[in-house]
Amino acid sequence: MSIPFAPFKREDHIYSNPAFAEFLKDAVRAFNGSPVAPMPPPSFTGSGVYALYCTAVKGPYAKFGKEINRLEYKVPIYVGKAVPPGWRQSRQLDGTADKSTSLCSRLIQHSRSIEQGKGLKLSDFACRFLIFEGVSVAMIAAVEASLIGLYTPIWNSVVDGFGNHDPGAKRASGRITQWDSIHPGRKWLKGMTGDSQDVKVIVKRIKDYMAGLR
Amino acid sequence: MSIPFAPFKREDHIYSNPAFAEFLKDAVRAFNGSPVAPMPPPSFTGSGVYALYCTAVKGPYAKFGKEINRLEYKVPIYVGKAVPPGWRQSRQLDGTADKSTSLCSRLIQHSRSIEQGKGLKLSDFACRFLIFEGVSVAMIAAVEASLIGLYTPIWNSVVDGFGNHDPGAKRASGRITQWDSIHPGRKWLKGMTGDSQDVKVIVKRIKDYMAGLR
Repeated sequence: MSIPFAPFKREDHIYSNPAFAEFLKDAVRAFNGSPVAPMPPPSFTGSGVYALYCTAVKGPYAKFGKEINRLEYKVPIYVGKAVPPGWRQSRQLDGTADKSTSLCSRLIQHSRSIEQGKGLKLSDFACRFLIFEGVSVAMIAAVEASLIGLYTPIWNSVVDGFGNHDPGAKRASGRITQWDSIHPGRKWLKGMTGDSQDVKVIVKRIKDYMAGLR
Repeated sequence: MSIPFAPFKREDHIYSNPAFAEFLKDAVRAFNGSPVAPMPPPSFTGSGVYALYCTAVKGPYAKFGKEINRLEYKVPIYVGKAVPPGWRQSRQLDGTADKSTSLCSRLIQHSRSIEQGKGLKLSDFACRFLIFEGVSVAMIAAVEASLIGLYTPIWNSVVDGFGNHDPGAKRASGRITQWDSIHPGRKWLKGMTGDSQDVKVIVKRIKDYMAGLR
């Protein structure tokens, strides 16, 4: 080894940029100020961050429609992201226009899950989404993380599995997710042979979450 | 639906913050200015971004040791990230101290892959890593993307599969990655029954990449 290593000091390896918090707040403000669309949304291109809002006035999520989201879309039931295709591999930051429909496709996919899920009505759902272009694409994960940290949406926390993709034949023996246990109906669920999770336990968790919602 | 939707205009849904590019540049500068450690690195806690550098003076990557990385660690052979455990689900941005060893563990795992990989010598490798704490954790993916976009490291692009995790018994029938085809030896490769990829084609791609490196 031609270049010698310096003695290891952890503090030499720490990055901190407190102003980044302000950046995230700016993006979150922009997100919360952007218009809300029905589910499924109109067709559009691009990648970015989205939130789904529930306005059901009946069932386990009734507090959303009756109180929390009655006058404004305030607390999302789910937050997610869609990055440009190939992003994981090539991570183009060169500002090439993103002609994909990854964000819209994801929302359409979610619309289908909700439509098929027992106890849910698609017209009780709406979405908000912000498209990130050029160098800002690199912020998508951070903004998604901020929104989830800010709201702890129930389908990102207490009831998991909503955002899962079709596991395919090879993983069909896996456990059925909490979301699919409580809202069965997705087509790819039929092929799954794993156990459902205890619905009573999940219902209790939903109840507790909704009761604590302000 | 109690709250009406506005007519859809794509431009109402676009987020752009050009100053974010400056943020990324600051982080990349901090990264490139941080000390380089041997492989495997000393034990430390935290999550963040890392780069592996090759300084081999023989074999297909000899240009790294003889020229590119001879006087300074300049062009990485691989860039990756390690986020705090549970980050995908809970995305804690509350500044809770990250006591995990996810970044260090990942580098140790990579050391093992290199040690076992045919044609590679672990002492020909070094690593650079930057630990992100608190709210800055949300920047990890963006900084990783920046570094990959900046350097297009060969094991992130031309030769893929290095960063893969043990696919486990269920995916053992899958295709052997390019990296494993050219550097066979990882323990979990033994269980895999899929075809190797054409080594000649990969060798040619490495040659072309190395020739183009400045």
